[in-house]
Amino acid sequence: MAEYPIDTTKDYVLVRRQEPERKSVVSFGDLSLGGNTVVVMAGPCSVESYDQIREISESVKKSGAHVLRGGAYKPATYPYRFMGHREEGLRMLAAARDVTGLPVVTEVMEPADVEVVAKYADVVQVGMRNMQNYRLLAALGSVGKPVLLKRGSWAKIDEWLGAAEYIAAAGNPNIILCERGIVSFEDHTRWTLSLSVVPRLKEVTHLPVIVDPSHGTGRRSLVPAMAKAAVAAGADGLMIEVHTDPDKSVSDAIQAIACDTFEVLMEELRAVAKAVGRSM
Amino acid sequence: MAEYPIDTTKDYVLVRRQEPERKSVVSFGDLSLGGNTVVVMAGPCSVESYDQIREISESVKKSGAHVLRGGAYKPATYPYRFMGHREEGLRMLAAARDVTGLPVVTEVMEPADVEVVAKYADVVQVGMRNMQNYRLLAALGSVGKPVLLKRGSWAKIDEWLGAAEYIAAAGNPNIILCERGIVSFEDHTRWTLSLSVVPRLKEVTHLPVIVDPSHGTGRRSLVPAMAKAAVAAGADGLMIEVHTDPDKSVSDAIQAIACDTFEVLMEELRAVAKAVGRSM
Amino acid sequence: MAEYPIDTTKDYVLVRRQEPERKSVVSFGDLSLGGNTVVVMAGPCSVESYDQIREISESVKKSGAHVLRGGAYKPATYPYRFMGHREEGLRMLAAARDVTGLPVVTEVMEPADVEVVAKYADVVQVGMRNMQNYRLLAALGSVGKPVLLKRGSWAKIDEWLGAAEYIAAAGNPNIILCERGIVSFEDHTRWTLSLSVVPRLKEVTHLPVIVDPSHGTGRRSLVPAMAKAAVAAGADGLMIEVHTDPDKSVSDAIQAIACDTFEVLMEELRAVAKAVGRSM
Amino acid sequence: MAEYPIDTTKDYVLVRRQEPERKSVVSFGDLSLGGNTVVVMAGPCSVESYDQIREISESVKKSGAHVLRGGAYKPATYPYRFMGHREEGLRMLAAARDVTGLPVVTEVMEPADVEVVAKYADVVQVGMRNMQNYRLLAALGSVGKPVLLKRGSWAKIDEWLGAAEYIAAAGNPNIILCERGIVSFEDHTRWTLSLSVVPRLKEVTHLPVIVDPSHGTGRRSLVPAMAKAAVAAGADGLMIEVHTDPDKSVSDAIQAIACDTFEVLMEELRAVAKAVGRSM
Repeated sequence: MAEYPIDTTKDYVLVRRQEPERKSVVSFGDLSLGGNTVVVMAGPCSVESYDQIREISESVKKSGAHVLRGGAYKPATYPYRFMGHREEGLRMLAAARDVTGLPVVTEVMEPADVEVVAKYADVVQVGMRNMQNYRLLAALGSVGKPVLLKRGSWAKIDEWLGAAEYIAAAGNPNIILCERGIVSFEDHTRWTLSLSVVPRLKEVTHLPVIVDPSHGTGRRSLVPAMAKAAVAAGADGLMIEVHTDPDKSVSDAIQAIACDTFEVLMEELRAVAKAVGRSM
Repeated sequence: MAEYPIDTTKDYVLVRRQEPERKSVVSFGDLSLGGNTVVVMAGPCSVESYDQIREISESVKKSGAHVLRGGAYKPATYPYRFMGHREEGLRMLAAARDVTGLPVVTEVMEPADVEVVAKYADVVQVGMRNMQNYRLLAALGSVGKPVLLKRGSWAKIDEWLGAAEYIAAAGNPNIILCERGIVSFEDHTRWTLSLSVVPRLKEVTHLPVIVDPSHGTGRRSLVPAMAKAAVAAGADGLMIEVHTDPDKSVSDAIQAIACDTFEVLMEELRAVAKAVGRSM
Repeated sequence: MAEYPIDTTKDYVLVRRQEPERKSVVSFGDLSLGGNTVVVMAGPCSVESYDQIREISESVKKSGAHVLRGGAYKPATYPYRFMGHREEGLRMLAAARDVTGLPVVTEVMEPADVEVVAKYADVVQVGMRNMQNYRLLAALGSVGKPVLLKRGSWAKIDEWLGAAEYIAAAGNPNIILCERGIVSFEDHTRWTLSLSVVPRLKEVTHLPVIVDPSHGTGRRSLVPAMAKAAVAAGADGLMIEVHTDPDKSVSDAIQAIACDTFEVLMEELRAVAKAVGRSM
Repeated sequence: MAEYPIDTTKDYVLVRRQEPERKSVVSFGDLSLGGNTVVVMAGPCSVESYDQIREISESVKKSGAHVLRGGAYKPATYPYRFMGHREEGLRMLAAARDVTGLPVVTEVMEPADVEVVAKYADVVQVGMRNMQNYRLLAALGSVGKPVLLKRGSWAKIDEWLGAAEYIAAAGNPNIILCERGIVSFEDHTRWTLSLSVVPRLKEVTHLPVIVDPSHGTGRRSLVPAMAKAAVAAGADGLMIEVHTDPDKSVSDAIQAIACDTFEVLMEELRAVAKAVGRSM
């Protein structure tokens, strides 16, 4: 693990917004995230096969998505469940990228896998469960690829930024924060998507912020409304689960939207982005 | 209290959306809430004086607000705090209406006050703390004015709709639901504004839904972003605290926005409303 | 409503513990609550009939309960549900008291009912939904009977004490606080019983504190363990739902324990009380 | 990582309580956890020096503690904070054990450290942040030492048992569950200690359950009351932070109790344990 010299006055000095005008832009492929353009990452929860991921990739690209998402290493709440095709899944993502040119974002779950995931991915994702897996965060400091850091479902903003600081302090300033819902007493959604973190983070950090309305609601029918709300709230991007046949998705079927729903949504999102002075 | 015949199969049959196309429109003054137009209610937390409320009323009207809000009967977490000018405050609201023509929404806190509040108000508000004050809800069944029912900060959607059903079952179908934030572990806002209730309520009830981003965040700087997000999420209206001199507000100073901030916000909101096919 | 002169420095000066040694004892019937004896209130959720309440009263008395609980005015989340026998229910409670001598605690829901409830009850209860029904709290200032103030499921300690202060400031110092569970993300109970409020309240207020493990869990099988835990944590009393035939209870069947379970529990509670230096 | 064959019907079949009478006892040193004796683990948050840990170890042993706790690998919310003396800290723990004979429990944070931690520790602890660090859980399947699995502050019971199942399925049945508080809206404690999980877990799993009232409240003055409550609720053990000079503790000073407070507490705990039919 990286060495972090002790200095309790610093906490999250690298990711904190100190100069009012400073705003970080994270670049990968031909994309810039954190600038004027709202970046949309779309794709299935799990990478299931070469055909599935290529087909979805072509569809979301046609609808205007900028990045392909898909899980090769899948966290499962219980063992005995599908945990992803691992390196083979990474190859499927890379093959889809060869066809569509869409950069790829995918999750890494442990330090030992960082190298292989970073070899294939354009953006390496840290999932909700691992937001405070400090060894993993430290390992991402030297990965040479941007890191998408999902919020823990229990994390206050300070704790989240503390996690981001681990990555930055280990040498990687290219960090994207992703709100994906928190635990609460509500039962109409799986988690409560807290969009007020978007404008609040803009005040306290220079890092770009995106929103995942798919996990953030866990309910397919609410995804379009919350995606639009996220853009209106100032999000720099979205991460949306899309599937050619949502009900047959091997994981998270309940929250994936169909490709044609996504196509309509992208039209709507472009209008909202424009209304708040952003392009898409 | 109204008599509600026992029938445990009904729960909230009156406010439930049973026909897919049905959507209730609540009318008052020249306004329709629940139709295509996004209705904006703006004004101070507390009605402080004839001059204050008239001045704010003129300002928000000029910026395009449709309804004047202001508290005459104020709930206070502790006694020994300002609790509003009561009937004199209602007269101040009515005097402001005489000048600007804006209809007035204001809170009622107990059955005994329903008559006097309804005499002056165009829309009678039930505050968060009273969402399950069933005697008050029942008394509003015969009030002849629309009721704005704020969500309890602890209330699941079912409980909220149960409260609305009390009003409807007592004879008043003109109910507006208002999301205003829930309790959670987050500490960057006073409450967590849960915008996913907006599209979810659209699926389960025919009642119109508005959002209060002022109480919903309790932080002035986040109000504009969350107001825009609410409209993008499909809200039928907004309730926003506006003050000529927010820092001198007698209550809730921390969350009121200034009149000029409101003016800019209204411009932005019109753009967002248009982007989602609504007028404002 | 009572007049509370404005003085924003006071907040909850009457209920705050200022002298380290001061501890309020609330007396009613032959009982003292807040002293060495742990006081147990037991009985059905709803008063159903003269026979039902007398039978349960005799049973819980035999097991050692000190107070009979039972609802005559019942809050219902949805209309069209059973809302209690109202004044007739109060008469049933009084008739049971005539037989067993157990003082009676029962809920009041609106200012208009305070007089009649106080006429029959020995302790008047304010339910969770009405913790911030300030008109009701103020009306209880002149009632001449102790008030049992349940915690709102959303209430921080400061808000709860603010509510208690309303009663005290209106003239009634005889207040008993009752923890009954808060909203949280947990799903193995209906609410999360937060026992740490017991020792914390002891630090900040001189008022006695009791615990309701029946509502606090909403699950019958967990009631005995949590009742014992509450006493070990320092609670001055308990409020437990007991029914002769729990599964046929007209309300809250899921959380009422049977009379014989209660009898065993009382034995166990006496041992725990003794272990922490209390009698029962 | 261990291979878990896919079978979505199993979820947590190994840790589930299927035979009513079955209760797992986890043994280490001369101790049995999960039987009649309530096992108390005590010690500092962080192992600071050979002298500090030996001194505290001698003190808590004298008061009757059964196990020495102390962190050698410390998770820190922000980098630039003290993260423990690592292997040297493990040696300090082992040296203290040589003096007092108390078995040692200490945290491991990543798969790469499992071997070294297991070499020194008698019980290996998984901290709250790593409850769903599945690679770490899998690595503990072959460790040959019992695992103490703390509850994530966001975790429902099912998610917690899912995590335990990972360890069991990887080959290690010796698992101890530890409740340590959950996120909620409360602000009088750092977390909300949810003691109802203790009796609920007894219904659904055969694994022993202990409680950490130190992290569970984050407030020193509440620790004794909640420790007693935990035992009364049926906990099989406790984990308590104790320090010779709490205010000088390098971490978590706010929640550690002093050695003399601990001595008094142990007396009280023995009485409560006896009252619920347990020894200590």
